[in-house]
Amino acid sequence: MTKQIIGVIGLAVMGRNLALNIESRGHAVSVYNRSREKTDSLVAEFPDRNLVATFSLEEFINSLDKPRRILLMVKAGAATDETIAAVKPLLEKGDILIDGGNTHFTDTIRRNDDLAKSGIHFIGTGVSGGEEGALKGPAIMPGGQREAYDLVAPILTEIAAKAPDGVPCVDYIGPNGAGHFVKMVHNGIEYGDMQLIAESYAVLKHVVGLSNHALSQVYADWNKGELNSYLIEITSQIFRKKDSDTAQDLIDVILDRAAQKGTGKWTSQNALDLGAPLPLITEAVFARVISSLKDERLIASKVLSGPPQKAFQGDPAVLIEAVQRALYFSKIISYAQGFAQLRAASDEYKWDLDYGNIAKIFRAGCIIRASFLQKIMEAYAEDKQLTNLLLNSYFSDIAAKYQSALREVVIAALNAGVPVPAFSSAIAYFDAYRTASLPANLIQAQRDFFGAHTFERTDKKGSFHASWP
Amino acid sequence: MTKQIIGVIGLAVMGRNLALNIESRGHAVSVYNRSREKTDSLVAEFPDRNLVATFSLEEFINSLDKPRRILLMVKAGAATDETIAAVKPLLEKGDILIDGGNTHFTDTIRRNDDLAKSGIHFIGTGVSGGEEGALKGPAIMPGGQREAYDLVAPILTEIAAKAPDGVPCVDYIGPNGAGHFVKMVHNGIEYGDMQLIAESYAVLKHVVGLSNHALSQVYADWNKGELNSYLIEITSQIFRKKDSDTAQDLIDVILDRAAQKGTGKWTSQNALDLGAPLPLITEAVFARVISSLKDERLIASKVLSGPPQKAFQGDPAVLIEAVQRALYFSKIISYAQGFAQLRAASDEYKWDLDYGNIAKIFRAGCIIRASFLQKIMEAYAEDKQLTNLLLNSYFSDIAAKYQSALREVVIAALNAGVPVPAFSSAIAYFDAYRTASLPANLIQAQRDFFGAHTFERTDKKGSFHASWP
Repeated sequence: MTKQIIGVIGLAVMGRNLALNIESRGHAVSVYNRSREKTDSLVAEFPDRNLVATFSLEEFINSLDKPRRILLMVKAGAATDETIAAVKPLLEKGDILIDGGNTHFTDTIRRNDDLAKSGIHFIGTGVSGGEEGALKGPAIMPGGQREAYDLVAPILTEIAAKAPDGVPCVDYIGPNGAGHFVKMVHNGIEYGDMQLIAESYAVLKHVVGLSNHALSQVYADWNKGELNSYLIEITSQIFRKKDSDTAQDLIDVILDRAAQKGTGKWTSQNALDLGAPLPLITEAVFARVISSLKDERLIASKVLSGPPQKAFQGDPAVLIEAVQRALYFSKIISYAQGFAQLRAASDEYKWDLDYGNIAKIFRAGCIIRASFLQKIMEAYAEDKQLTNLLLNSYFSDIAAKYQSALREVVIAALNAGVPVPAFSSAIAYFDAYRTASLPANLIQAQRDFFGAHTFERTDKKGSFHASWP
Repeated sequence: MTKQIIGVIGLAVMGRNLALNIESRGHAVSVYNRSREKTDSLVAEFPDRNLVATFSLEEFINSLDKPRRILLMVKAGAATDETIAAVKPLLEKGDILIDGGNTHFTDTIRRNDDLAKSGIHFIGTGVSGGEEGALKGPAIMPGGQREAYDLVAPILTEIAAKAPDGVPCVDYIGPNGAGHFVKMVHNGIEYGDMQLIAESYAVLKHVVGLSNHALSQVYADWNKGELNSYLIEITSQIFRKKDSDTAQDLIDVILDRAAQKGTGKWTSQNALDLGAPLPLITEAVFARVISSLKDERLIASKVLSGPPQKAFQGDPAVLIEAVQRALYFSKIISYAQGFAQLRAASDEYKWDLDYGNIAKIFRAGCIIRASFLQKIMEAYAEDKQLTNLLLNSYFSDIAAKYQSALREVVIAALNAGVPVPAFSSAIAYFDAYRTASLPANLIQAQRDFFGAHTFERTDKKGSFHASWP
């Protein structure tokens, strides 16, 4: 009996689409789901595809070539632990478990350690691109044993998205939790991108006064330039969409209460643990939280007034261009923070991350895919250990040219009472990062005054304490 | 043999000063430290004080009246668990362990649960005010069993700081981890206060051009008004302090690299878990992190230029007053966020917190003591379940009057390239919180577009998915 080179456990939409993707590259795929209904319906729906249905874990495992390659697509958390516990007794040394779920990287580190004791390889991989990406080509971020990655690399490379230059959006990320970590930061960056676009929308709508039709055109124009990206493209399409019920523009009947699945939060919490400044993405996470307080905001809107409203006086084209520049520069700042977090993590967890490779993977298949990732690749090609993206000449040139636009847009928003937490945080980070002397000397003086926490001096090494006052 | 009504384990500076504080109220105090040197030196230093030195845990426990009241002042974390494990076999039902260390509230919840199984009461208490507060009168935030609190309340009340109206700065906070939680938020608020003052300093120094001498006077003036507080008072004194080595102003030789002990970080991480927006304090934490990247900033300061520098044109007195108003209004926003976090925690952990009582405790003894806490007490006296401080009339009046000053100060800082992340975050939060319709509708449209995450509608209940594009 022929055996399959790979099998998938867990046939919810992501698992099922990945199985179909693998099959579409010419491989028979073993499939298994805890409740047999999902297996039956998958096979029934695709009778001509080379999917080998199995109905017990034993049957599933026995259907696989050795070393076995098993892709786990079950719910992150306890369900993943339970599945691993059930499969583990059936595995042999050298077999490879691949967790493609939305797993916190610390769980992946723990599982990789545990399974390594039995000689079982464990890869934790980020899979980005949603349902459609899973089916047609996601961005894939695998972490775990290098030798295990090499054994699954051919399949992952086949199923991955391809960047415009044809390069597959997958590569070895690093040991144990590195892959899931990079996926987490990807999601944090996605939060930042979406909040920045939302703020650009708020300024264009409330300050410039653009209609949805005009907004659609503006984002379509931007998508032809340096902001070219999936999120800008769909933003343009969103403003064109009609509601089939009311014939209104759909955007105007969508409630302004943004939800989250927690990975943005994880990114911020980890940045706090690492001591890596991530204010922009964190403001984006909190902006979603504030949006969710719709009932409170409705009350507050009646109690708290804003600044006096004035009609927009300037040239719309000028402010629109400033918003485009503010958005691009803020996006650069957000990625600078996110990639600095990757660097801090690489040092902390000993991962030896290749930042250029990571930018390479982000170029297609995933939500944050954008032309601008090419610029990040190039920056790390010039200097693999670049401390901060802003120090690369392409990005520092943009900073020099676009910072005045960002300041101008924030000022226009402040005067109009339009909240722009991410734009504001971007310029504050930029100004802090480029400032040789911050007012933190006062904070150290206060800490020494009230708690004898000591301070450092500008003129000599050591820790000092003053006899205050 | 007479027995003592209370004993202290752990005689580092906080434990020793609390023992001396209790003794000064007329109580003999049993003291114990794992290494006897600290015990010996304490007794040798204060031979006339009523401190009963003990040199084994058995001797210590036997020296106490029942139910035993034991104040643990050991290092938070593993050392606290070890001490509890060592003491527990010697205790009886009804005895009371009080952890006065800098403990994460989740550890306190766990220990309270564990000890309750043996009938042992466990109080986790915040103690704020540093070494001097411990000796003379700290602010005290005890959480745990109510009946246990009642048995230690007389002593805690005696040793606590007294507010200007004579009311002691201690009261029962709530079950299990509530006390340590409130102390954590206190520390987060302290981070916010200090960052806001640092930003006011940066604007006054770099935009207005004030000397240290003038700064000292400005903060002294502010301390006479609505900003009256311990931190403003010491800020004024800091700018007057000379360096004994160089005869320069001390502030100018202190390195601008702010350190942290982690409680600000905990506060932000918890706010993210609770879904309670805490952007200002989080910006303050990240501002410290950025300040600590001194070497990177020195490099960046040579690569990244700011806006063209212009001499200040306006009336200094006008901008100084605007900064005062910006600082007061931002402080209100920071406390509104912190107290909203307390409310979210009270709901989540079922603590039934009394917010007015918490403000009452903060009025003296601790680092954030300030006249303005009286206003918070009054707001909660008017409405015990006030949703957000900004909705109280005193605070909404300040918002109406002072928001233009905050906008103006942020704009002045933006134009000068002076980073003001906390001021910026304050006004962004204010504008978001008071806005009925945020651009989060676009975020929901994007999430539904790329991930079929569904959206809510403004015109009917339910979850909806559109067929994009």
